[in-house]
Amino acid sequence: MNKLIVELVGTFFLVFTVGATVIAGGSGVIPPLAIGSALMVMVFAGGHISGGHYNPAVTLGVWLRGRSSPKEVLAYWLSQIGGAVLAAAAVKYLKAGAAVAAAAPAVGPALLAEFLFTFALVYVVLNVATAKGTAGNSFYGLAIGMTVMTGAFAVGNISGGAFNPAVAVGISIMGLSAWSNLWIFLLADLAGGAAAALVFRAANPCDR
Amino acid sequence: MNKLIVELVGTFFLVFTVGATVIAGGSGVIPPLAIGSALMVMVFAGGHISGGHYNPAVTLGVWLRGRSSPKEVLAYWLSQIGGAVLAAAAVKYLKAGAAVAAAAPAVGPALLAEFLFTFALVYVVLNVATAKGTAGNSFYGLAIGMTVMTGAFAVGNISGGAFNPAVAVGISIMGLSAWSNLWIFLLADLAGGAAAALVFRAANPCDR
Amino acid sequence: MNKLIVELVGTFFLVFTVGATVIAGGSGVIPPLAIGSALMVMVFAGGHISGGHYNPAVTLGVWLRGRSSPKEVLAYWLSQIGGAVLAAAAVKYLKAGAAVAAAAPAVGPALLAEFLFTFALVYVVLNVATAKGTAGNSFYGLAIGMTVMTGAFAVGNISGGAFNPAVAVGISIMGLSAWSNLWIFLLADLAGGAAAALVFRAANPCDR
Amino acid sequence: MNKLIVELVGTFFLVFTVGATVIAGGSGVIPPLAIGSALMVMVFAGGHISGGHYNPAVTLGVWLRGRSSPKEVLAYWLSQIGGAVLAAAAVKYLKAGAAVAAAAPAVGPALLAEFLFTFALVYVVLNVATAKGTAGNSFYGLAIGMTVMTGAFAVGNISGGAFNPAVAVGISIMGLSAWSNLWIFLLADLAGGAAAALVFRAANPCDR
Repeated sequence: MNKLIVELVGTFFLVFTVGATVIAGGSGVIPPLAIGSALMVMVFAGGHISGGHYNPAVTLGVWLRGRSSPKEVLAYWLSQIGGAVLAAAAVKYLKAGAAVAAAAPAVGPALLAEFLFTFALVYVVLNVATAKGTAGNSFYGLAIGMTVMTGAFAVGNISGGAFNPAVAVGISIMGLSAWSNLWIFLLADLAGGAAAALVFRAANPCDR
Repeated sequence: MNKLIVELVGTFFLVFTVGATVIAGGSGVIPPLAIGSALMVMVFAGGHISGGHYNPAVTLGVWLRGRSSPKEVLAYWLSQIGGAVLAAAAVKYLKAGAAVAAAAPAVGPALLAEFLFTFALVYVVLNVATAKGTAGNSFYGLAIGMTVMTGAFAVGNISGGAFNPAVAVGISIMGLSAWSNLWIFLLADLAGGAAAALVFRAANPCDR
Repeated sequence: MNKLIVELVGTFFLVFTVGATVIAGGSGVIPPLAIGSALMVMVFAGGHISGGHYNPAVTLGVWLRGRSSPKEVLAYWLSQIGGAVLAAAAVKYLKAGAAVAAAAPAVGPALLAEFLFTFALVYVVLNVATAKGTAGNSFYGLAIGMTVMTGAFAVGNISGGAFNPAVAVGISIMGLSAWSNLWIFLLADLAGGAAAALVFRAANPCDR
Repeated sequence: MNKLIVELVGTFFLVFTVGATVIAGGSGVIPPLAIGSALMVMVFAGGHISGGHYNPAVTLGVWLRGRSSPKEVLAYWLSQIGGAVLAAAAVKYLKAGAAVAAAAPAVGPALLAEFLFTFALVYVVLNVATAKGTAGNSFYGLAIGMTVMTGAFAVGNISGGAFNPAVAVGISIMGLSAWSNLWIFLLADLAGGAAAALVFRAANPCDR
């Protein structure tokens, strides 16, 4: 139960920061830096309790890597979506009246962009937060948060830069992304997370 | 006594950086990055002596979490306010003649914004600097400082982004915030800190 | 074999981020911050498996420092070039149609700039990731990634700021650098890496 | 001797980054971020050998704190000045022809600004790199480098933001500061470093 509180709190602040920095004025350095930093601090704060996923694609990858159970996956996913919904509601209250336009990504490039950086994110998570070779390190939150920042800088203008189905739900509620595009994020992000788990296992053959 | 010196020094540089970067030209990336960084370096420098609070809401949360005494809370608060007053005086000397305008936040959104990110800040502090599960880590200052940076990016234009009653006093003296709005910060920030202590205890049931 | 997968993945995301942030709009804070951060997260993710070089000049320096073999050097170089080629292909697909102009650096300053910061990069790598005096630290990825960011800010407009022959190959494929200038990067970067290994050995006389 | 190589290399890259980012276009986020980052990576790379001072005011503070000898202080100072001179020469070659204007700071505010942030810098250095209470940490370079970044954001437009007599010599050679103002930096920075050593000793009574 306490794990689910932590996943909800962390996903809330991640999705809240997405909405608060992108709506009404968010381009340039600020949204990627703020969003990556929100994820970083929440991973540092909650990692010791829940693992600090805040992302259904990460939870999927952790399960495929052998560090979770189907029951826990489902509970985490619900917590994460719950946090995203609450965050979207808070942003809608605070930014009431601000103009919001849904991005209109090209499907092919968006699928590739989301796949690549969700792969990178889950690959980084599995290596810095679940591998024997990095046990006890103090950099896991920095590595994880800055992967999202890097991806948002690199392909944010191609796909929107969610790399996270819960974020995708949140930006759909806030009107930053069309509901008809939600499948792009669900498909590419979960596929990227699964691919990362496979590559992690190939790259860490003695770490089961 | 040495703890109080450290709290005064740290709060001084935090509030000084707020004033020096916001007055005369501070918008965009610079103030949140500089302010979060000022807090980070002072937490890294003084955490081993005083805990590195520099914030009455953090001190309140640490007390509610069971790591301080009422007498220490009061002494810390006075040190923190003292540092803020000195910093405001230094900024007024260095920025003499610069135009200063008090922000005019809407009360409801400002209360929510201050509550949310002071909650996040104290939640992060308690988890990275007082929890058994993260003992001995090297990231506490990074996590704490970057939480304030994230909050300033996310809601700085809604509430002013203090998340700290001592900062609120400092910006009131410097003219960046109206004295008539001080209650917003006192109420929302102390409530956020108290709520974070409760959530921390729920999320860390075996860590007393 | 698993080391070569990690070198390919890491170099892919490094070179991909170079192309994705520089083509079509990349000046100012974003490319150096994103590129340095891409390197940082990949070093944190893969360092425990392959050492996290992602750069033929680093691999050369590590070999001269006595931590690799000629056979491994060659395999790493091929992996790194492979990752760069794949990244250039991905960027060309995602940025199809964007205007790309090759930089036209002055040869003398470009040679000096590339030499200096590849020296700095390999000097930092050897000290933070292979020295006895820093064994077990949690900052190696941060130090390595931010060295590249610093160099890109300092001399990016002089040489292009590759500091890495694999990156040089990637930006040549993408059209950001002329093939006729490739020798500048190969010569200066490998010389910088070799010089760093010599200075490292002089500065760490008891660390063989 | 190897300590002096490290001090020269580190001060070289610090002063080089100052010149390369400030001359011809340096305002806004980039110079403070690049300069703080240059110091950070050089402290992480060289701290285990020389302590990573790269700054005569830091060396003074370390001596007053009881961790150095007069002979070493002098040798370090010469190395640091040597690195600064070489860096200024390299910048003058690479930026030949660029317009350079010396800043014209007001003396009183410049003295206070330099004193305050050199105090902060040496206070941070002594606490994160020489105190028993933070021994073995992985954040010392981050804390030290980001203190300079914070100071450059906060008071860079008041004093130039050197906080370091070697940097002051470097920017005087490069023409970014008038030789007639050199005394401001020497006086304020050494006084700030000495004051920090006194406060450190008061705040760490059991750490001799």
